[in-house]
Amino acid sequence: MLQRCYQLGELARLVGADLKGDPACPIDGVMTLENAKSGQISFLDNTRYLKYLPITRASAVVLRTQYLDRSPCHTLVTANPYHAFAKIAELFKKQRSVATGVHPTVVMGENCVIHPSVSIAAFCVIGSQVCLKEGVIVGATCSIGEGVSIGANSRLEAKVTLYPDTVIGERVLIHSGSVIGSDGFGFAQDKGVWIKIPQLGKVQIGNDVEIGANVTIDRGALDDTVISDGVKLDNQIQVGHNVRIGSNTVIAGCTGIAGSARIGKNCMIGGGVCINGHIDISDNVMITGMSSVVRSIRKPGIYSSTQSVQPRREWQKNSARFRRLDKTIRCLRK
Amino acid sequence: MLQRCYQLGELARLVGADLKGDPACPIDGVMTLENAKSGQISFLDNTRYLKYLPITRASAVVLRTQYLDRSPCHTLVTANPYHAFAKIAELFKKQRSVATGVHPTVVMGENCVIHPSVSIAAFCVIGSQVCLKEGVIVGATCSIGEGVSIGANSRLEAKVTLYPDTVIGERVLIHSGSVIGSDGFGFAQDKGVWIKIPQLGKVQIGNDVEIGANVTIDRGALDDTVISDGVKLDNQIQVGHNVRIGSNTVIAGCTGIAGSARIGKNCMIGGGVCINGHIDISDNVMITGMSSVVRSIRKPGIYSSTQSVQPRREWQKNSARFRRLDKTIRCLRK
Amino acid sequence: MLQRCYQLGELARLVGADLKGDPACPIDGVMTLENAKSGQISFLDNTRYLKYLPITRASAVVLRTQYLDRSPCHTLVTANPYHAFAKIAELFKKQRSVATGVHPTVVMGENCVIHPSVSIAAFCVIGSQVCLKEGVIVGATCSIGEGVSIGANSRLEAKVTLYPDTVIGERVLIHSGSVIGSDGFGFAQDKGVWIKIPQLGKVQIGNDVEIGANVTIDRGALDDTVISDGVKLDNQIQVGHNVRIGSNTVIAGCTGIAGSARIGKNCMIGGGVCINGHIDISDNVMITGMSSVVRSIRKPGIYSSTQSVQPRREWQKNSARFRRLDKTIRCLRK
Repeated sequence: MLQRCYQLGELARLVGADLKGDPACPIDGVMTLENAKSGQISFLDNTRYLKYLPITRASAVVLRTQYLDRSPCHTLVTANPYHAFAKIAELFKKQRSVATGVHPTVVMGENCVIHPSVSIAAFCVIGSQVCLKEGVIVGATCSIGEGVSIGANSRLEAKVTLYPDTVIGERVLIHSGSVIGSDGFGFAQDKGVWIKIPQLGKVQIGNDVEIGANVTIDRGALDDTVISDGVKLDNQIQVGHNVRIGSNTVIAGCTGIAGSARIGKNCMIGGGVCINGHIDISDNVMITGMSSVVRSIRKPGIYSSTQSVQPRREWQKNSARFRRLDKTIRCLRK
Repeated sequence: MLQRCYQLGELARLVGADLKGDPACPIDGVMTLENAKSGQISFLDNTRYLKYLPITRASAVVLRTQYLDRSPCHTLVTANPYHAFAKIAELFKKQRSVATGVHPTVVMGENCVIHPSVSIAAFCVIGSQVCLKEGVIVGATCSIGEGVSIGANSRLEAKVTLYPDTVIGERVLIHSGSVIGSDGFGFAQDKGVWIKIPQLGKVQIGNDVEIGANVTIDRGALDDTVISDGVKLDNQIQVGHNVRIGSNTVIAGCTGIAGSARIGKNCMIGGGVCINGHIDISDNVMITGMSSVVRSIRKPGIYSSTQSVQPRREWQKNSARFRRLDKTIRCLRK
Repeated sequence: MLQRCYQLGELARLVGADLKGDPACPIDGVMTLENAKSGQISFLDNTRYLKYLPITRASAVVLRTQYLDRSPCHTLVTANPYHAFAKIAELFKKQRSVATGVHPTVVMGENCVIHPSVSIAAFCVIGSQVCLKEGVIVGATCSIGEGVSIGANSRLEAKVTLYPDTVIGERVLIHSGSVIGSDGFGFAQDKGVWIKIPQLGKVQIGNDVEIGANVTIDRGALDDTVISDGVKLDNQIQVGHNVRIGSNTVIAGCTGIAGSARIGKNCMIGGGVCINGHIDISDNVMITGMSSVVRSIRKPGIYSSTQSVQPRREWQKNSARFRRLDKTIRCLRK
């Protein structure tokens, strides 16, 4: 592959940054401050990495104005260096060749509406009455159920499963191993035996959503499960039936959301969080990783219930105290 | 699709409910109290939704006798409205067409015993000596290892993986992405290096089991891993080698069960729970979501270790106190 | 299948154990102490199972010298019975037939370098410029992206997904449903909307690594994500972008590791643990199951933050006390 190369001045204009240094400086790649080599551009956003700024070998760096005096190289100054860097990195992304057209091995049902620009890779199985709009890309061995519809320019990586009737918006990206629209977990007890509740709703996914690898999103029991525009889900997230996630909310990996929970807009939810069923979380809530949310959260803010590790001996002593905390405090009060 | 329609009186008879209202009232669908329209039937089970009862637009509702006076419409009164509703919802389930027979693309090993009524979708790979009984349905791109046997009327959705020798009972439903029978996590340390312990057992799954999407159940090391009749597992559950789960136990999503744990009958285990290896949990135990079970539980009852979130500042103060709780209490005692 | 049978003396020599009993005793299988039958050999490593030693029906048992006097049968004495047992169990492992060669259904890209000894099962899709070394085995319906390379004698079970450019070492085993090299979770906020950061790094996996079922390992954003030699990952583990895991570290199921965390060598990490992003964990750290690691750990040792369950009433009282612990202690101090 031919190495792409840009002048630093071009990059400054692209991201609207203020250039301190040589606009002719050639840039042929992007890398972290710690590992950049000459010819590459790096960035500083998280201040944990400030220690690498003075010693970076990058030819240029993107940062906020307050760190400019510590930059050892040509510098692009901007208020949002991470975003600026995203745009620059995009230029250096390796272009993958995607075959266009439907691979001859694909098994397709009746009455599908497939735009001529759609690409479907080998061994996909497409049910009847599926609608794939302009520019949709479907990776190898995906399974797309009856009646699914996918909006323009959305992409499924290999091995995505969409159960029947799933509705996907535009510019959605779904990573491998994710399963959208499987049955919600609903059973009624009848004399000690569990009777399945038919899961009659579906999953609706908005525009500009990204869904990581091995995510599961259950179809609704009666109402639909709804993932709104701009939501970003990391890997291995579980979303129960009838959940609603508001627009532009981001959720980190391994988080589980029980059935009928409603999560607001612009929330940031850490990894490994568990959210109880049938509760509401308002807009603009941030929940730190591995917290448990048992009750509704009505006010924006940052919420936690994460106890970090201690050396085991100390932990055991404190934990033993916790187990009789109520008694101890009653006793101390006397 | 032709809209199905029933008279309310028929539905009352079907579920054995006491009808208060017009037996001729036509019902053409099911929906939640909140979103039901005229012509639909709804139900009240979880009292969180009682607020929607007086304002529902449903034409009929299923509920317990104590809420009858708050019903604004025709009513079916029964002791178990969720179960009654399950039966009614079944009537309105969209019937999916399932092609019968073995798709011509299927790759099958030698000496398989496949009942003529079995359906196997495209791109499945079936090992040798596999036995599929009457009415089994296998979704697209499933992988079924050598020597697997599946009982009558069980169904694998697309992309299920069964490792060799897995035994599945009757009327079992397994959702997409689940992997049954992969190697247990067993390694012996030898001079700092980990040596694999061969995993020689298998997985046995009873009758009437449902397994969600992206679940993993490891084969036994020596003994088998056993999932008993009537067990229901939600999505993304991990079951370690040699685990035994008693009949009619239900487990919510994202729960992990470490190797050789034994879980009793009729247990209800919440989502995100971690259960330690080599412990026993007796019958009729309920464990609330995101709890950790480190030691055996010998008595039926409800158990918890879930700390719900607080605003971060408050949490940090309390958490800091916790980290020196033992010292503080010693000090206060003096 | 012909039953294999060994004399106990042969097994003693194989594992270098001290034989107390009859070297001619025939052994035709391996089983747990609890369930062994005559003719089988068992072992005692975890002392939880000591209670089964005197009553085992095994014909022989492998154990440490201090338990010799409690053995009711022929005995192999060794300092590391689990490791010795691993070697013996290997003898009784059922040999699976693996077809050699590339199945005619496989779809392969251009310029691949596939060693003649490689086995690729049905419905795999292999991108261009893929390199598979001697003895590699690829299970059914795997998806291997452009530019992937896999070292000698590595094995992918069915339905493994390797994104482009993933590098896998020798003697690696990856179980079904795992996804290696999907995009890391990186987004920059721009006026309330999340902009994707291109993920330009890849995943590098060393030699002798085992990866369980439904694991996800993200590609690096700029640097690579690195899993070092001898690492063992259980099922359903999530590894974020740019994470580095040192050699011979073992991690149990359902653990999540956020982006850019660095984990040392020879660590043992329990199941359901959450490890924060951008932190360091030194070599030889053990973390007990379901702990949360928010800050770096600089010293070897055992660390915990797992609160085990209590009966719900007790838990609720203690938990309520915890929620106002800071205030209570301030108050008590006065």
